Amino acid sequence: MPARLKIVISYDGATFAGWQSQPQGDTVQDRLEAAVQQICGMRSGVHGAGRTDAGVHALAQCAHFDAPDRRFSPARWISALNALLPPQIRVMRAVYVPKTFHARFSASGKVYRYRIWTGRVLPPFELGRAWHVATELDLGRVTSAAHMFAGRHDFAGFAANRGRRVENTVRTLRSIRVRRVGSLLTLEFDCDGFLYKMARMLTGSIIRTAIGKESMRDIRERLSHPVRSANGPRFAAPADGLFLVRVKY
Amino acid sequence: MPARLKIVISYDGATFAGWQSQPQGDTVQDRLEAAVQQICGMRSGVHGAGRTDAGVHALAQCAHFDAPDRRFSPARWISALNALLPPQIRVMRAVYVPKTFHARFSASGKVYRYRIWTGRVLPPFELGRAWHVATELDLGRVTSAAHMFAGRHDFAGFAANRGRRVENTVRTLRSIRVRRVGSLLTLEFDCDGFLYKMARMLTGSIIRTAIGKESMRDIRERLSHPVRSANGPRFAAPADGLFLVRVKY
Repeated sequence: MPARLKIVISYDGATFAGWQSQPQGDTVQDRLEAAVQQICGMRSGVHGAGRTDAGVHALAQCAHFDAPDRRFSPARWISALNALLPPQIRVMRAVYVPKTFHARFSASGKVYRYRIWTGRVLPPFELGRAWHVATELDLGRVTSAAHMFAGRHDFAGFAANRGRRVENTVRTLRSIRVRRVGSLLTLEFDCDGFLYKMARMLTGSIIRTAIGKESMRDIRERLSHPVRSANGPRFAAPADGLFLVRVKY
Repeated sequence: MPARLKIVISYDGATFAGWQSQPQGDTVQDRLEAAVQQICGMRSGVHGAGRTDAGVHALAQCAHFDAPDRRFSPARWISALNALLPPQIRVMRAVYVPKTFHARFSASGKVYRYRIWTGRVLPPFELGRAWHVATELDLGRVTSAAHMFAGRHDFAGFAANRGRRVENTVRTLRSIRVRRVGSLLTLEFDCDGFLYKMARMLTGSIIRTAIGKESMRDIRERLSHPVRSANGPRFAAPADGLFLVRVKY
């Protein structure tokens, strides 16, 4: 009898063209589906909780797929998948779940972390893993701007179009945590769901506000008159600094 | 009048064939010398405090070179060099020093850090930056083995030949700090000087002792009857996990 597996995956986004399968490009989903097929001998879709863009990293993306049976223990699935996957993608955990579980639809929220390096020189070890904003950022301004987004809002003004229109753009941002350790500034967004490029657009807006290129009023305006901007992506922080940290169920 | 500059450099060892210039291979020293030459219009040797092997990283390698004059401020040197260097090499700091300063001969010691991932699966973000020893390591055993090396010893039994013979193989290991945070085990060696591959051979020996492949007596034996082993490198921990953390003056 088919059995559903939930897996937790970590990947370095720099190596892949994002999560989702595409006609062109090497994606994390493609790699996982190929590995599952090689193990099972049959095709089985691997459904992720969220579609991360090219360059965006995951500490703990979640996904599910259906195995033909329960012959393999979860530990064996981890070993078998990792043996076939490139080292930039690792299955960290696996567990059998009821057939009613769906990585995307069962998720109650996600946590994304954005890393910003504010020192004058970007250390080589932060390359591709942080946005280099070589400016002393006023932590008070960053925090004030960030907190304007907390709560339930229509975030249409902070999302990019992905082609088709999403009906409901109201989301609840449960919390935004701002932390600074040395030159590293971290923003952590805990939300019941993210619109396309939302975490990056919020980050872009917060940083632009902190350096005075935008005002708190601009944020208030865009939150109260939500219009999805065609040139939104222009205002998005780069993909490098973004990490999917957790999917909540 | 020529002026001597001391620079602090960080680099990702995975990208280069080590620090030192070689007939073949792209080295950190080559890159720095090329950048200095392009700025000064003349060749000037860049002398490092230590020659890190291919794959070994540096958070803060030190080096010096002679500029033709003091026309550029240290801050300008940092910008100019970083503009020419690949992002995997960054000049973090620069300062003019007296002509008597020598990056290697003036150093009173160095600190190397070795990172070991003991979890079952190596997260993609540790790739090339930690040694994956997928075993629960007994912290007590690791610490006991590590502390056998502390103090003044003839470390010939924990060094590889680099072709020519070093006369004096006695060194003082001022401290070894062992730390574990989650699955990451860190060994930090503070020594007045390191022999060739010494940090990696000490690490290899400590870990082999911790997992029972070697005994404390083996270590005591090799310390009291120091013979430089021809097959030493075989026992060295991989380069990936090693970081030059600090050079002391």
